[in-house]
Amino acid sequence: MPEAAYLEISRRKLQERDAKIPSEWRIQVPDEDDLTDLPRTSGVLSERELDITERYDSVELLECIRDGKYSAAEVTQAFCKRAAIAQQALNCLTEIFFDRAVERAAYLDDYLRKNGKPVGPLHGLPVALKDSINVAGVDSTIGMAAFAFDAVKENSVIVDVLLALGAVLYVKTNVPQSMMTPDTENNVFGRSRNARSRCLTAAGSSGGLGALLGMRGALMGIGTDVGGSVRIPAYCNGVYAIKPSSGRLPYHKLRGYLSLGAEAIGILCVNGVMAISMRDCDLLLRTVSDAEPWLLDPGFSYLPWDNSPLPDRPLVIGIIVEDHETSPLPPLIRIMRETCDKLRAAGHEVVEMDFYKCAELAQNAVGHFKVEGGKALDAARAATGEPYVDSVAQGGLYPCEEGTLSDLFALTAERLDLQTDWLSYWASTARKSSSGRPVDAILCPPQTCLPRPHDTLIRSHFSRIWNVLDYPAAIVQCGVVDLSKDDIELPPARGPMDARVQSIYEGDKRKRYSGFPIGLQLVGQRQMEPKLSKMALLLDKLVRES
Amino acid sequence: MPEAAYLEISRRKLQERDAKIPSEWRIQVPDEDDLTDLPRTSGVLSERELDITERYDSVELLECIRDGKYSAAEVTQAFCKRAAIAQQALNCLTEIFFDRAVERAAYLDDYLRKNGKPVGPLHGLPVALKDSINVAGVDSTIGMAAFAFDAVKENSVIVDVLLALGAVLYVKTNVPQSMMTPDTENNVFGRSRNARSRCLTAAGSSGGLGALLGMRGALMGIGTDVGGSVRIPAYCNGVYAIKPSSGRLPYHKLRGYLSLGAEAIGILCVNGVMAISMRDCDLLLRTVSDAEPWLLDPGFSYLPWDNSPLPDRPLVIGIIVEDHETSPLPPLIRIMRETCDKLRAAGHEVVEMDFYKCAELAQNAVGHFKVEGGKALDAARAATGEPYVDSVAQGGLYPCEEGTLSDLFALTAERLDLQTDWLSYWASTARKSSSGRPVDAILCPPQTCLPRPHDTLIRSHFSRIWNVLDYPAAIVQCGVVDLSKDDIELPPARGPMDARVQSIYEGDKRKRYSGFPIGLQLVGQRQMEPKLSKMALLLDKLVRES
Repeated sequence: MPEAAYLEISRRKLQERDAKIPSEWRIQVPDEDDLTDLPRTSGVLSERELDITERYDSVELLECIRDGKYSAAEVTQAFCKRAAIAQQALNCLTEIFFDRAVERAAYLDDYLRKNGKPVGPLHGLPVALKDSINVAGVDSTIGMAAFAFDAVKENSVIVDVLLALGAVLYVKTNVPQSMMTPDTENNVFGRSRNARSRCLTAAGSSGGLGALLGMRGALMGIGTDVGGSVRIPAYCNGVYAIKPSSGRLPYHKLRGYLSLGAEAIGILCVNGVMAISMRDCDLLLRTVSDAEPWLLDPGFSYLPWDNSPLPDRPLVIGIIVEDHETSPLPPLIRIMRETCDKLRAAGHEVVEMDFYKCAELAQNAVGHFKVEGGKALDAARAATGEPYVDSVAQGGLYPCEEGTLSDLFALTAERLDLQTDWLSYWASTARKSSSGRPVDAILCPPQTCLPRPHDTLIRSHFSRIWNVLDYPAAIVQCGVVDLSKDDIELPPARGPMDARVQSIYEGDKRKRYSGFPIGLQLVGQRQMEPKLSKMALLLDKLVRES
Repeated sequence: MPEAAYLEISRRKLQERDAKIPSEWRIQVPDEDDLTDLPRTSGVLSERELDITERYDSVELLECIRDGKYSAAEVTQAFCKRAAIAQQALNCLTEIFFDRAVERAAYLDDYLRKNGKPVGPLHGLPVALKDSINVAGVDSTIGMAAFAFDAVKENSVIVDVLLALGAVLYVKTNVPQSMMTPDTENNVFGRSRNARSRCLTAAGSSGGLGALLGMRGALMGIGTDVGGSVRIPAYCNGVYAIKPSSGRLPYHKLRGYLSLGAEAIGILCVNGVMAISMRDCDLLLRTVSDAEPWLLDPGFSYLPWDNSPLPDRPLVIGIIVEDHETSPLPPLIRIMRETCDKLRAAGHEVVEMDFYKCAELAQNAVGHFKVEGGKALDAARAATGEPYVDSVAQGGLYPCEEGTLSDLFALTAERLDLQTDWLSYWASTARKSSSGRPVDAILCPPQTCLPRPHDTLIRSHFSRIWNVLDYPAAIVQCGVVDLSKDDIELPPARGPMDARVQSIYEGDKRKRYSGFPIGLQLVGQRQMEPKLSKMALLLDKLVRES
């Protein structure tokens, strides 16, 4: 039997990618589980470059560039180096275009020198992209051999906006086959890994981006999220994120796995931001909104950023702890509890909520995800003889039957009903609060488990439900695993899925999580990202200062 | 052969409706073509009631109610009477609930007296509804026997909002079978007529509402528009309208002709306002936005009303005069020209535009309108043996084949491309303007013909194109037919559709249009209704004052 075509394509693609890393940046990756220190120990980055990549978030670094402390060129060089190391350690990149980035940075430095002002608010900031985001002249392989060696002709709208804002683009990052699993592995680029533990998932589908951020090979990146694909890797790699509602960040002209047109119907995939700090997430959303992307993207709502401060009163925060199948592992429960204590201590009110209609919402999500039938995915697989990778084969979505128009209409009607029910449920929380006001946001875990070992399927209702409702959600870092507090006995498993969650935290396994950063999820009302972002900033400040 | 079930249902339904008109309000309708004076000559309304219904727009009348000049009760009584006369003359109503309206008005008067302030900004204003808008306890027949005598259980979201704002609901208005033709006729209620000429169409699909407004049986009403159904009847009955983009006015929980769920996909039907003045349209949009309907309707975007004034500079107005098939009749061309002169005289710039991709947009609209296959419509017809009415049978949409998911995806992808092309085209108008700014709005006819005789199918590209693009559009009254200027020779017809347009204006036929009000259409950018509304107010003022 002849070798399947995808294998040769993968070899050539990897060769092409690896050749983009200059020989002087090549390293031996040590056989250690935790590789977060590798950029510092590798000797590739100068002290100044280590400072650039480690001492700032984007907001501060941008100030340094504007003030002339660092040039865009040296910032770009530092992050190219660090991304190259992350790639060698974690296999997180798909496309490398350091040459363009260097050229762009030189242009920006020149511009700043000549004009005395930056090109835009992101002047000189390296921003990493998920592979599905199109950059003209670069492949958008999305982990599928059929799409390799076929550079796209046109930028995604978000890329045009980032460039107009002054960003430097330098890498694209790895995704799972299908982009519908939280395990970043595919037949072209292989598997991405978690910087804090190579045997743990970088998650997905924006997993390459998560891994890169986990090693500070970028301070900011753009991923996509239709069921958790920005929030889960942010959580698993210990960074911040905001997944907005549809219509907030331009999503037009990306490459997806669905038939053309299908992505604009049903549960809408959105671009989201992952970053080193909540300020950075806020910065990205705000500056993109200020760039009036509704003039560029027909799917974009007219949503000028609201710069007014939060109302001068205590916030009402609803909390949801469990889904209908699973309970959070001890570190998550403890950090949820401590975070609530901090909120209360700061004068805010915390009210308990149910995970209302969670099972119905989850079922609706799966129905939507399957209705296209995986046709475009299977056609692309067939073109080069690609099998499903394990995580996709086990994921329960594919293969699936294509639905009918009637199926889609029924799913849509059901989704609208669920969304309406949730509007009422949200309003009804006013009855629970002492102020008589409904909750301002919901605080919940991003999922009930900790970062999983590779290919261990554990459903995450806490992410996809907010996509069905189209609510914006942020990941805010709220603590770290502390085994002096979190090494406690687990309650009896609630069922098979809860047993799976518990299985990653049994006995000695929990030791590997010691010190792991734990983010929580803050969920806002539809399209009210300015309010959500300000609340997430407030929460972040509260947690860090208390 | 036994009589088809719908005929008996229709008889009972008409009987029920007609019985709701008190005997003292019953009149003999004279055999005249123009019935606009009938409310005054009928003797049913007192002088004070004639004043109430004729001397004000909603903005002024609301002031009178707040100031105590008129009570809500007497305003309600006046409009109930006038609507009853309009019904007898024009057959424009489907549901009459004067009793509820009277009770509501008494409550409002009581509230104002006790609290010294109104319930809301629409306190005491009678607002008429298209039949598809659900009022709990009242039928939403939408002209289909299968839906008769089955009162709906829940208000449409827009109804809840109107009530919260203080409105009085008193009637629902007639629609065409299918709501997809501009001829308001169906097998249950029959045909609605134009107050200015009974042999001319009241248009549609919000045709009953248009006819009612044409006789000032209401000052304001809510219709729906997926291809022109608010704007065409506003134009044909000489009133004002704004059809917003999707997401501006809550549309949730209406009754439609499509399978459940289908209306939330593709080209989205929207609620729009029709009213006696542009100020009234502005008032409705603004007050509904201020009521935060995004907390009630999951399809609603977060779109707070922008109260800031228009930029302090001349506007750039693009004009489009012809579509790819037809040219406007002489009064429309003249009034377009005169309106442009007035704009220029006031310092604004007028630039010519093409009707870019009109044919492709029109084709995409038809594809979207057909993809559901008319299944729900045909099922409802079959339930009581209803045939298509003539205008539907000749309309070219029904019967049609149900499409597939792939068809829907392809139509969606094409629509997104067309929307993207139009964003570029709009931006490109900056090259045509002396200021280097793109156009602020587009001025064009609502259609190329004048109000048609009944059941004369003439396509109207000038309306549905803006639905495909989801742009908001206003109808502003800009002049009247003046045969001393408009009785000119027609150019050779451009083709069969142009010949149809010209056919209604041949020889003596043009005499019937003498004095007919002519509205023009002002089109804004997606979801920027506050800006469009302010420009429409400016245009209206300019036209009336010059």
